[in-house]
Amino acid sequence: MPRPAIDFWFDFGSTYSYLAASRIGPLAAEAEVEVQFRPFLLGPIFSAQGWNTSPFNLYSAKGRNMWRDLERLAQDAGLAFRRPEPFPQNSLMAARVALIGLPHGWGERFCIEVFRAQFGDGRPIDQRATLAEILSRIGADPEAALAAAQADDNKNRLRAQTDEAQRLGVYGAPSFVTASGELFWGNDRLEQALRWAKRETGLGV
Amino acid sequence: MPRPAIDFWFDFGSTYSYLAASRIGPLAAEAEVEVQFRPFLLGPIFSAQGWNTSPFNLYSAKGRNMWRDLERLAQDAGLAFRRPEPFPQNSLMAARVALIGLPHGWGERFCIEVFRAQFGDGRPIDQRATLAEILSRIGADPEAALAAAQADDNKNRLRAQTDEAQRLGVYGAPSFVTASGELFWGNDRLEQALRWAKRETGLGV
Repeated sequence: MPRPAIDFWFDFGSTYSYLAASRIGPLAAEAEVEVQFRPFLLGPIFSAQGWNTSPFNLYSAKGRNMWRDLERLAQDAGLAFRRPEPFPQNSLMAARVALIGLPHGWGERFCIEVFRAQFGDGRPIDQRATLAEILSRIGADPEAALAAAQADDNKNRLRAQTDEAQRLGVYGAPSFVTASGELFWGNDRLEQALRWAKRETGLGV
Repeated sequence: MPRPAIDFWFDFGSTYSYLAASRIGPLAAEAEVEVQFRPFLLGPIFSAQGWNTSPFNLYSAKGRNMWRDLERLAQDAGLAFRRPEPFPQNSLMAARVALIGLPHGWGERFCIEVFRAQFGDGRPIDQRATLAEILSRIGADPEAALAAAQADDNKNRLRAQTDEAQRLGVYGAPSFVTASGELFWGNDRLEQALRWAKRETGLGV
């Protein structure tokens, strides 16, 4: 019998992906569901919907309430929160580095630290120095990781991830997809996605 | 000390307002929070954002997943679900009738029955016959209610409700607003809004 599993699709610029990245490890461990971190780029997916930036910038009432909502949720969860400027940040380099780290044991920690640097401390994640500091701190080799991240085959892997997200029907982040292709959108659906993954493999209710 | 209270802002055409309307009574009673039902029209608010229909129609991947999400949530909640055609329905007449009923004791029941007719049974809520049947069933006078609903002063009250929603920063439905003006968007935020209302009046955590 396969072990229950979900893919966690996120863009580093996504505010609610910060909350999901902070919660998913302990929740999935408790539920005994395997999680695969799948960074991708929302930019091309938003472009296909006719948006040239985050909908939170395009729709101001929605954007204002999103920041307030995030502040309230972070406070309830005991998470640091600081609004980064500008928003959204360019998440390209961070996503490429994450793809290098994920098969090598330091990827998930890197992802969580990038989210925390950006939305906890308001630091710019499009800058090499920010990513290098995180890489050092978690014991990865910054020079090697940043060089590998910029190699053509890795750039192509990120493009392929984004294409795959779009094929799965992903239209925002975070999204969770089970083995059968069941798609759940938003941090609020994390618990339901974990339950669904268990149900699919004949476990849980 | 004032009793904790929230306003429940909704449009009858809104899918997630169906879920919220079905849950809010028991949850608010348990939390000892007073709820005021505030029907309004999303149409003018969507128009101001440049949308001529529901965003679930404008953005097809988002729309597809919304219907699937609604189906899953309704099933978990033991609620009937049937997708109405067309979507969204014209909610104008139902909102006008609700405004007549809310000060007279049958308003909340009417609202819940309209949502159930539409999203539980797929019935057209823009038709007089649907609303008349519901009014009869809940013991209101259909002819009197429908006539009062179409009077000029009632039409103006609905316009004023929609203006008030917009002033409060409401950009989607359902929304919940506490006495201090704290705005929560979406069925997923109902529990948090109730907790917030209690906290505001010095009760709860």
